Amino acid sequence: MEEIIVFGHKSPDTDTICSSIVMADLQTKLRGKQVIPCRLGEINDETKYALNYFGAEVPKYIEKVEEGQVVILVDHNEFSQSVEGIENAKIDTVVDHHRINNFQTAEPLFYYAQPVGCTSTVLFELYTVNNIEIEPKMAGLMLSAIISDTLLLKSPTTTEKDIKAVKILAEIANVDVKTYGLDMLKAGTNLDKYTEKELLCLDAKKVEKENVKYVIAQVNTVFIPDVLKRKENIEKEINKEISEKGLSLFVFVITDIVNSNSEAIVLGERADAISKEYELNDNIAVMPGVVSRKKQILPLVEKNI
Amino acid sequence: MEEIIVFGHKSPDTDTICSSIVMADLQTKLRGKQVIPCRLGEINDETKYALNYFGAEVPKYIEKVEEGQVVILVDHNEFSQSVEGIENAKIDTVVDHHRINNFQTAEPLFYYAQPVGCTSTVLFELYTVNNIEIEPKMAGLMLSAIISDTLLLKSPTTTEKDIKAVKILAEIANVDVKTYGLDMLKAGTNLDKYTEKELLCLDAKKVEKENVKYVIAQVNTVFIPDVLKRKENIEKEINKEISEKGLSLFVFVITDIVNSNSEAIVLGERADAISKEYELNDNIAVMPGVVSRKKQILPLVEKNI
Repeated sequence: MEEIIVFGHKSPDTDTICSSIVMADLQTKLRGKQVIPCRLGEINDETKYALNYFGAEVPKYIEKVEEGQVVILVDHNEFSQSVEGIENAKIDTVVDHHRINNFQTAEPLFYYAQPVGCTSTVLFELYTVNNIEIEPKMAGLMLSAIISDTLLLKSPTTTEKDIKAVKILAEIANVDVKTYGLDMLKAGTNLDKYTEKELLCLDAKKVEKENVKYVIAQVNTVFIPDVLKRKENIEKEINKEISEKGLSLFVFVITDIVNSNSEAIVLGERADAISKEYELNDNIAVMPGVVSRKKQILPLVEKNI
Repeated sequence: MEEIIVFGHKSPDTDTICSSIVMADLQTKLRGKQVIPCRLGEINDETKYALNYFGAEVPKYIEKVEEGQVVILVDHNEFSQSVEGIENAKIDTVVDHHRINNFQTAEPLFYYAQPVGCTSTVLFELYTVNNIEIEPKMAGLMLSAIISDTLLLKSPTTTEKDIKAVKILAEIANVDVKTYGLDMLKAGTNLDKYTEKELLCLDAKKVEKENVKYVIAQVNTVFIPDVLKRKENIEKEINKEISEKGLSLFVFVITDIVNSNSEAIVLGERADAISKEYELNDNIAVMPGVVSRKKQILPLVEKNI
């Protein structure tokens, strides 16, 4: 029997991992045959907390896919963020909440994206549309994904649909959103255990546009100065990444999840893409009120690059 | 007030026109402000029959869109099949049933595609999901679109969802599917009134892949030899198109809607993309059981080009 696999993007975050597990559950029920959740990298502490809390297993790690492998993508579509070999896989289904870029298929597919805060919000709708009951474990995972992506519904990416989904999912999962949410987010902010190189990869999005390559990485913390203590070594690693991967720009965003602000270390020959909007002092841009890479930082870089 | 417009692909067929009108109705109701259906070309006789039967107005013709215009696409996504200026428009929503190719956006969007026979089948689901009542006129237009794209549910592109939608829509529109469907399809088969150049444009899909450009055009008839009487002049026009537009291949598919077969005139330096599968005699490929460009001809060309 041909095995169908589901996975999210590289440098997996809580949405990517939880949505993979949830999508595998939904598709297994829809298709009547086992669909396998997978991951393309190490899971972070925040995600571990969520999986542990709701008793979910860590998805299987995969490095690449064979030609013709039937795959389901969640939380991404750009091939540069996907698994090795994606170009020759058979993409059957995509559920996402990002723009579409650097993506194509040979055949018609099921593709459902909405401009909402989190992939799991779209998945939540798909359970409803298909009249499939949501188990408490799956509700907890979707809830965790939405809390993570919207920083407890505070990010400007948050929509009415996310808010509605969180309300219903919290009831099914039987948790208090604020208490659970802050505990989960805080679990992901212990950055001391990571090397500088690891910090850059925790949640990194690599983008290619007309041969210009750049990375926007993001970490969450409860106290930005704690991370900036390591600025010198972080910059060293960023410069290494830039030269090794031929990047024009690297933006390392440090987000304060309690106060909803960010500061970013910006390096690369195209640092002007950020400095046009935010003054750079010693390579650092202070970004009050900025928490969303997708809604606030990516459009800015896109516009200027 | 910013005007939002909906349109389908160039060389509009019945699905593209009907889905534009229906999507404008749905979005007007969802957004609480007027959304305007548009078209990118002349409507054909089959579509005229459907609009006339259900008392719908012909959408407004547009040639191009201004930068930043908010647009909704139905029944296509490839920029090469879309309106002039699409690259700089703001694509808000796409509802489609084709593969994704040569498409990208700067921001997240609502994108819903399903591998079903017709765009209107997806629209039908969206009315249901959003709890919006379907008026008989809109039901009739969706029904016409599905009948057209699936050739009365006989095309291999037909899915369970199309069949189910047709059943419910026929009840709401209060028509007998087979009688109405054959009348509508036959209304589109009077090809004598068209010049050869017009025949090539009636329902043409232009595809660009890695700098190889090709066109697959299709016409419906009740008697293929009637069309092949004009073979010499059709070939003259095809060769003109090939040299003017720098095409590597032109496939002109003539489909017998009663017996569900096709013959194709195949010209261009890459005629081998077809001849690998179907023997060419005097540039003509006989294709028994072939009625679907998307499911049967396009994948073949893609594979070989």
